[in-house]
Amino acid sequence: MKQQYSLSHRMQGMSGNVVREILKLTQAPDIISFAGGLPSPDSFPVDELRSITAELFAQDVGFLQYGVTEGLPGLREFAARWVGDFNIQAKPENVLVLSGSQQGIDLACKALINPGDVILVEQPTYLAALQIFKTYEANVVAVAGDEAGMLPDALADAIHKYKPRLVYVIPTFQNPSGICWSLERRQALSQAAAEHDFIILEDDPYGRLRYSGAPVPAIAGVDGLRRSIYLGSFSKVIAPGLRVGYAVAPPELLQPMIIGKQGTDVHTSNLSQQIIMRYAQKGGFEQHLPRVRAQYGEKCRLMLEMLEKTFPAGSTWTKPQGGLFLWVTLDEGVSTTALLEQAIAAKVAFIPGTPFSASGGCTNCMRLNFSNASPADIEIGIERIAQVIKQSLA
Amino acid sequence: MKQQYSLSHRMQGMSGNVVREILKLTQAPDIISFAGGLPSPDSFPVDELRSITAELFAQDVGFLQYGVTEGLPGLREFAARWVGDFNIQAKPENVLVLSGSQQGIDLACKALINPGDVILVEQPTYLAALQIFKTYEANVVAVAGDEAGMLPDALADAIHKYKPRLVYVIPTFQNPSGICWSLERRQALSQAAAEHDFIILEDDPYGRLRYSGAPVPAIAGVDGLRRSIYLGSFSKVIAPGLRVGYAVAPPELLQPMIIGKQGTDVHTSNLSQQIIMRYAQKGGFEQHLPRVRAQYGEKCRLMLEMLEKTFPAGSTWTKPQGGLFLWVTLDEGVSTTALLEQAIAAKVAFIPGTPFSASGGCTNCMRLNFSNASPADIEIGIERIAQVIKQSLA
Repeated sequence: MKQQYSLSHRMQGMSGNVVREILKLTQAPDIISFAGGLPSPDSFPVDELRSITAELFAQDVGFLQYGVTEGLPGLREFAARWVGDFNIQAKPENVLVLSGSQQGIDLACKALINPGDVILVEQPTYLAALQIFKTYEANVVAVAGDEAGMLPDALADAIHKYKPRLVYVIPTFQNPSGICWSLERRQALSQAAAEHDFIILEDDPYGRLRYSGAPVPAIAGVDGLRRSIYLGSFSKVIAPGLRVGYAVAPPELLQPMIIGKQGTDVHTSNLSQQIIMRYAQKGGFEQHLPRVRAQYGEKCRLMLEMLEKTFPAGSTWTKPQGGLFLWVTLDEGVSTTALLEQAIAAKVAFIPGTPFSASGGCTNCMRLNFSNASPADIEIGIERIAQVIKQSLA
Repeated sequence: MKQQYSLSHRMQGMSGNVVREILKLTQAPDIISFAGGLPSPDSFPVDELRSITAELFAQDVGFLQYGVTEGLPGLREFAARWVGDFNIQAKPENVLVLSGSQQGIDLACKALINPGDVILVEQPTYLAALQIFKTYEANVVAVAGDEAGMLPDALADAIHKYKPRLVYVIPTFQNPSGICWSLERRQALSQAAAEHDFIILEDDPYGRLRYSGAPVPAIAGVDGLRRSIYLGSFSKVIAPGLRVGYAVAPPELLQPMIIGKQGTDVHTSNLSQQIIMRYAQKGGFEQHLPRVRAQYGEKCRLMLEMLEKTFPAGSTWTKPQGGLFLWVTLDEGVSTTALLEQAIAAKVAFIPGTPFSASGGCTNCMRLNFSNASPADIEIGIERIAQVIKQSLA
């Protein structure tokens, strides 16, 4: 790119989202892709959405006019009640409707982050979040973790050393790893936030998609919404193309996010909000979620079985109880970035580990999505990746 | 508000959009409001939107899945062709679909503005833009103008003195003043941008709403899309509740805006995009715009007639050839902020001038919206404001 125009500091050397670029390469119809983070289109409640939309246009079409930044009162009310399932005690005034939950990461940074401020993240973490943090010129530091969340010692050290302003976590069926934080680790993070005066940004797009194990409260629930901002999404439980999510936070943190949102998109599409509000009010989720959970849970089980059957010794992987992803670690010498090229030649795709790491590393890891491919494709695709790995080791 | 949480510098002392706060006060059903910037709900093409939406749900529902950040190819293509009406030669690759054109102001700042950079604006200008510039910690400087745009001498002085990085203008039926820049002033600004190495951010939500006078090219058209970013909107010509607009820019400027958008809402609601794309492709605008223009043009004429008939000597106002607003200047001693309270007591509302000014002043001015009220309410409402002014002068 020519440097004819001088960009802001935050945009210098910034390239597009790596995953979205890889996704473009893998959209050929004969490639089996475990690369995206897409919900399965079979899971969309099309008939219900069709009839709700017809109803909407048959009644008062006030949704075509401008709305308020905070969101539809009925949708704020629903979200406030719904997060009670994760032990969050919220009122409608604690809720801001978002144009997808990712907007909440941007708005939280707008409200809280000055250049140079430290944000602690999991290792690995959601790569789009890393990119947003970069646009706010934050200093992002990865904290080591295991299958139960950030390691207490590593977290304590990082807090001591870096005095973070924000700790960003996806504690429930994490992207990319699929792990779920234990209650103890959630409590410890909330306590640390109170002691060391940082804010927890809890990103939870997958919490409703639990396939096994016992539910665990949200960190914002444990925290009593004192020093936490909780982000929820309707993308994975209805349909992402409508772009609706929500933030739940104490009013003093929500207010600057509302001001930030006024300045970007004024408010989220009223049509999208109305569709989701009515779907929720009719009890759509009670019908829909058990179906989605059964479908994705079965695909997850199948992928784990195929990994067990086909992947070479020395490979390990997480065993998610929910969500959309699992995380494979190969022999230390293997570069999954190099492997991807061969995989695409073999008509299968994944995302290599590196872009999910704030601190380098994860070069021998890959993220696999199990929600979007068909069971037959999961069987064939995992077999293909196993072949590619074996060839590279030979 | 308690200072329990420490906010980012950009949010310190920031209050919500003044107009949106005033709007909340004026939503009582017995108040005649000229305060908002709302298109008239009678103008929404409800039947067409209903049948397009029904069609959409009867066909491939791919729009429920995630989409690409840049926007629907068909909508980018339409926008690229449509801006040709304003002499902009654009390709689909020059277009980024936005969640309302205001998002383009935010993304342009994200791409270009560092704290302390100077942005030149018209006096008065769009107040939400002022608020966005504040969140980027820009140094905003107002340039004096008349009914044909920024005054050449004042612009030259400001460029010399401040070396701006961005010049933000709404040259066609400006918000709040309703004025339209002459071709000469447009050319001069484009030339200055090339000479002094700044970018022009041209905000054009109202350009399609011309009621009289001859069309004039967009600044981005005059400029040949070299040093300009053009923002267009569907809010004022279909319906704002769908939240769709677009940016047109050289690829090197569009690319960082795309990266910025990836980090906020990933992409604009596919359902909203599909509805507008199909409406456009069916030739909806050719049918619809003449109706909207006739309706708003008549309301504008009526409001001007009522001002002439009722407002006290010493008041002056702009005579817009399009758009949604006109701008009244009262006797210098009058404070329109003080007047608003009495106006609301008299069941009529407007927006006082001060929030539209980056440099203080405009204390004796008011913005009046003529698109949203009925003709009968325009007659009664302007009469009421005239009474309130006369009482305050007595």
